[in-house]
Amino acid sequence: MVAPLKVGIAGLGTVGADVVSLIEEQARVLSARSGRGIKVVAVTARSKAKKRNVNLRGIAWAKSPLALATDPNINCFVELMGGAGDPALSAIEAALKSGKSVVTANKALIAKHGSKLAALAEKHGGALNFEAAVGAAIPVVKTLREGLAGTQINRVYGILNGTCNYILTRMEQEGLSFAECLKDAQRLGYAEANPSFDVDGHDTAQKLAILASIAFGTKVAQSSVYVEGISSIAPADLRAAQDLGYRVKLLGVAVRTKSGIEQRVHPTMVPRTSSIAQVMGVTNAVTIDGEGISPITLVGPGAGGAATASAVVADIADVARGIRAKPFGRPIAKLRTIKKAPMERHEGGYYIRLMARDLAGTAATIATRLAEQKISIESIVQRHPNGGVDTGAGGKPSPVPVILITYATTEDAVRRALQAVQSDKVITGRPQVVRIEKN
Amino acid sequence: MVAPLKVGIAGLGTVGADVVSLIEEQARVLSARSGRGIKVVAVTARSKAKKRNVNLRGIAWAKSPLALATDPNINCFVELMGGAGDPALSAIEAALKSGKSVVTANKALIAKHGSKLAALAEKHGGALNFEAAVGAAIPVVKTLREGLAGTQINRVYGILNGTCNYILTRMEQEGLSFAECLKDAQRLGYAEANPSFDVDGHDTAQKLAILASIAFGTKVAQSSVYVEGISSIAPADLRAAQDLGYRVKLLGVAVRTKSGIEQRVHPTMVPRTSSIAQVMGVTNAVTIDGEGISPITLVGPGAGGAATASAVVADIADVARGIRAKPFGRPIAKLRTIKKAPMERHEGGYYIRLMARDLAGTAATIATRLAEQKISIESIVQRHPNGGVDTGAGGKPSPVPVILITYATTEDAVRRALQAVQSDKVITGRPQVVRIEKN
Repeated sequence: MVAPLKVGIAGLGTVGADVVSLIEEQARVLSARSGRGIKVVAVTARSKAKKRNVNLRGIAWAKSPLALATDPNINCFVELMGGAGDPALSAIEAALKSGKSVVTANKALIAKHGSKLAALAEKHGGALNFEAAVGAAIPVVKTLREGLAGTQINRVYGILNGTCNYILTRMEQEGLSFAECLKDAQRLGYAEANPSFDVDGHDTAQKLAILASIAFGTKVAQSSVYVEGISSIAPADLRAAQDLGYRVKLLGVAVRTKSGIEQRVHPTMVPRTSSIAQVMGVTNAVTIDGEGISPITLVGPGAGGAATASAVVADIADVARGIRAKPFGRPIAKLRTIKKAPMERHEGGYYIRLMARDLAGTAATIATRLAEQKISIESIVQRHPNGGVDTGAGGKPSPVPVILITYATTEDAVRRALQAVQSDKVITGRPQVVRIEKN
Repeated sequence: MVAPLKVGIAGLGTVGADVVSLIEEQARVLSARSGRGIKVVAVTARSKAKKRNVNLRGIAWAKSPLALATDPNINCFVELMGGAGDPALSAIEAALKSGKSVVTANKALIAKHGSKLAALAEKHGGALNFEAAVGAAIPVVKTLREGLAGTQINRVYGILNGTCNYILTRMEQEGLSFAECLKDAQRLGYAEANPSFDVDGHDTAQKLAILASIAFGTKVAQSSVYVEGISSIAPADLRAAQDLGYRVKLLGVAVRTKSGIEQRVHPTMVPRTSSIAQVMGVTNAVTIDGEGISPITLVGPGAGGAATASAVVADIADVARGIRAKPFGRPIAKLRTIKKAPMERHEGGYYIRLMARDLAGTAATIATRLAEQKISIESIVQRHPNGGVDTGAGGKPSPVPVILITYATTEDAVRRALQAVQSDKVITGRPQVVRIEKN
């Protein structure tokens, strides 16, 4: 009989407490699955005195994360404190340096220091598992790292932030504004008091950078991710999307292109019939395009204590079974520095919504400006706010929305065309631009 | 540097040829991911002379599957011949007995002999990997075996047969009959000349039995699966499903109940908004309900050479990396004999479609018979074929469809109620019954 895996857990918030309980409850199954027992022997958190809904009897209390990480009595250090820097970073480094395995749910840390930590894990022979950092219980890290080990990945994209998807779902289903839905999300605890990290796309960008690294064999490069949030999306865009056969989602997209790896986070029109378009509310989903095969989509809970704990415990079980997968799927020496494909070179279809001052003249001007950039128009729709026809009678006409869908073109061409249209002063306000992602 | 993993492949159909090519094409990535090279050193198939679209230069030809399985020059035997018996069975047994690892895509064999083969693998220290046997490229075996190792699974269900889903999709979208769509599926190569194995649900049953074993820690028990195919489904059922907010799918469902493990394959009404309802055409999908977390759904290509080869190569890569997961997630000694929940005890909602001879009397009779079995009716709709109201005038009225949705009840109660209705002679033909599965 192999000795049990001795686990130390730093951080006893919802996830930490759920991990302690799950290991206790599932002890028999975990031992059967792993071939050895798994035992939480020590924990630590900011406040020892705090009341927690978890049984810590028989479990030692370490005086600090660092003390726990270097405790010779544990083999596996589980970091659930969060934060891209210390104390999480130095504790994980210390644990890896002492040859221990590390399990973490910390996306910020892995996105920022993942390559460095992977090198330490590799050097000292420990595992560095972070399934919970992306998509919580959805086994997307394992799928990319192991399940598709022999398949060339060409694109990974997904709904990686439940807050944004919740807001977009409510906006679409109830015709509400972004601000109203955000307020509701905050009231329900789906969004933070300072929502920027979620709604401006940064959370998605961290997760995307991690997935891209495993998918393409490159070093994690969060700073190479182009990021746009959802705050500019209006109910009018969601209605137009519906009419045109699309749905708007905040996607993180990483794709292999001729000019390098494109990593981008932005509101995206996805075909209404795609798997990803069906994902509503706080649910997350990731689609993986492998060479020569139809896409694989994984859907599930992307946040929450139980869902995150499920992934953390599976990672611990892998450590117990002796699995030492390379953290990013390949040895650190084989991870290339990412060749960033510049956003200006992005190719795809575009949805553009403009407010035209004067319809007849504006349509001709827009068409000309797009033609100058060699952009082909798939459809152009002029929406009269009251469903009527603008007769032009009775003084100055009010602005009319014009909605365009382009065939595949480049980001650069679209930007230049719209700049020209704005200089022409035929529209009011800023043009709304949403990229289209085909499945 | 670790010596390369030496692979022998028995069976060179589409999948076999694709595996040989994929290992060749992805050699560099596979070696980076696995920490060692992977090399196909020998193959065998029924006919050596047959023209194949694959480069076999430098690869030895074994004189039989058994000879290949026991060839001391290989470490990993890949069985892609198919068939629940010999030569696949004896070759795999021989390979395992000689301590080699085995990778197979053979669902029939694993469903029938999985437990016996897992015992051999365990005894002799080899791996027995069969990701490709269920859902081809969808990593569902790995997800159940490893990704959710610490989570209690309560239900696994899915669309596991692309042929049936293709037929149901076409029937729904084009209002065609089962027979017409089957003919088309055969013409397009999605269905065999003898389609029974697919459309009668047996293929789904084999895959379900494998998933249930991993999910619940029980020995594979294909003979305990209740099986019903899709040939009785009529366009009228699909139209009614649409009106009622459902879609009809052939599901394999394995669920933990008070009376044991229920394993069943049958046409099923699923809520139109569920992830599984969105899966159209030949695509497969599996939903996993873990204790305390929202369902996880995996969607992807469930068949085809490239998709199957993707899973086979990932399994080989796991062997190369030294991963020796228990084939069904737990040691063979811990796998319990399944306690079969009898189908009569199944609880759930039901869709029932009857052809009423005479409307007024029939509705009362049906309601009485259901009430006698304590079945509550959620809705009852009487459909006049021409949209009009049956006046009863002008001689004998033609039969009118009556569609019922029940609240949760038992299979037994439904069967008894419908038997009574039939004895009452108020309906023509056989009642159509489709079980409802809530997400």
